[in-house]
Amino acid sequence: MSSSPPSKGRPRDPRSHEAIISATAALVAEMGYAATSIGGVAARAGVGKDTIYRRWPGKPELVFEAVFTTTDQAPIPDTGTLTGDLTVLLQGLVEEFHSPAAAAALPGLLADFAADPSLKARIRSDFLAPSKERLLIVFERAVLRGEIAAGTPVDLVLDTLAGAVFFHIGLVGEHPTPQLAGRLATVIAKGIEIR
Amino acid sequence: MSSSPPSKGRPRDPRSHEAIISATAALVAEMGYAATSIGGVAARAGVGKDTIYRRWPGKPELVFEAVFTTTDQAPIPDTGTLTGDLTVLLQGLVEEFHSPAAAAALPGLLADFAADPSLKARIRSDFLAPSKERLLIVFERAVLRGEIAAGTPVDLVLDTLAGAVFFHIGLVGEHPTPQLAGRLATVIAKGIEIR
Repeated sequence: MSSSPPSKGRPRDPRSHEAIISATAALVAEMGYAATSIGGVAARAGVGKDTIYRRWPGKPELVFEAVFTTTDQAPIPDTGTLTGDLTVLLQGLVEEFHSPAAAAALPGLLADFAADPSLKARIRSDFLAPSKERLLIVFERAVLRGEIAAGTPVDLVLDTLAGAVFFHIGLVGEHPTPQLAGRLATVIAKGIEIR
Repeated sequence: MSSSPPSKGRPRDPRSHEAIISATAALVAEMGYAATSIGGVAARAGVGKDTIYRRWPGKPELVFEAVFTTTDQAPIPDTGTLTGDLTVLLQGLVEEFHSPAAAAALPGLLADFAADPSLKARIRSDFLAPSKERLLIVFERAVLRGEIAAGTPVDLVLDTLAGAVFFHIGLVGEHPTPQLAGRLATVIAKGIEIR
């Protein structure tokens, strides 16, 4: 959630936070989503369950953050071109979806989202919000450079980028080539650029 | 090659086939993927379980065909432009992913694919083959019109089209607008066209 202002005075210990995130990713990769529990994560991270529940409402939120927001703290790409910036964002998605934790987490996470309408309703507004913020800044710079029009639909482009990577790696199970992020970025950038 | 006892030399009855497909889609939409069984489909379709097992190895194959190949028998679009053809293909995907049967089938189907490496290994070669064939013909015509280069990567474009629709409708749960297929088609066509 790199785009949010830093929360001042939050009593969160960054070492516990990092330990919880690492323990979650490791447990999911080793045991699968179903067998991963808040109690198991707490034990592995050396914290109390309450510490986890103060920060995450439940397992889906915790696993999503541990597995699918690994690049949210990275600097927002500013390569000078839309294609370059999208390549960097896509490379992050490729690495996330190609991780053992992602392969282990996805089916159970999708089932939990699908089974709980209140959780599903928060995918766009909560779970995808940090990625959208990053893409919005990339788009703003591309508008200033005259590459794309103001009002280019950021939600639909985000769904296309994430959906392509999810389908290719997470669903079909392709091993990503080094060129994958660049090839997808080239297609999408060209597809939305003013010409 | 089926290991079931041979039938009495009767060719496959297209009415049974259609009845089985309809019963499967209806059962999945009503009861969910987990509660749908080959026995339940057989009873609803008025056929024996053997009749189903002669055609489909198991529930994932049957449900996939019932829910996600509804447009495979439609004429391959030939509108005169790549954007037009992709719009037709995408409209079919939008309708499939927006169906009640798809929403009910997806989490369980994805879990079955993920849990069975031999099933997952057949996604590209078997499950996606008819869609790829259709896209290949659309691409061949676009190459002849000079819109795209020969060798445009059909697998990656198919993953992008299907992934975008899956993510937008199946995962995020967006209600598709009438413009969705055309907007996605315009982006992808422009993204792969020669300019």
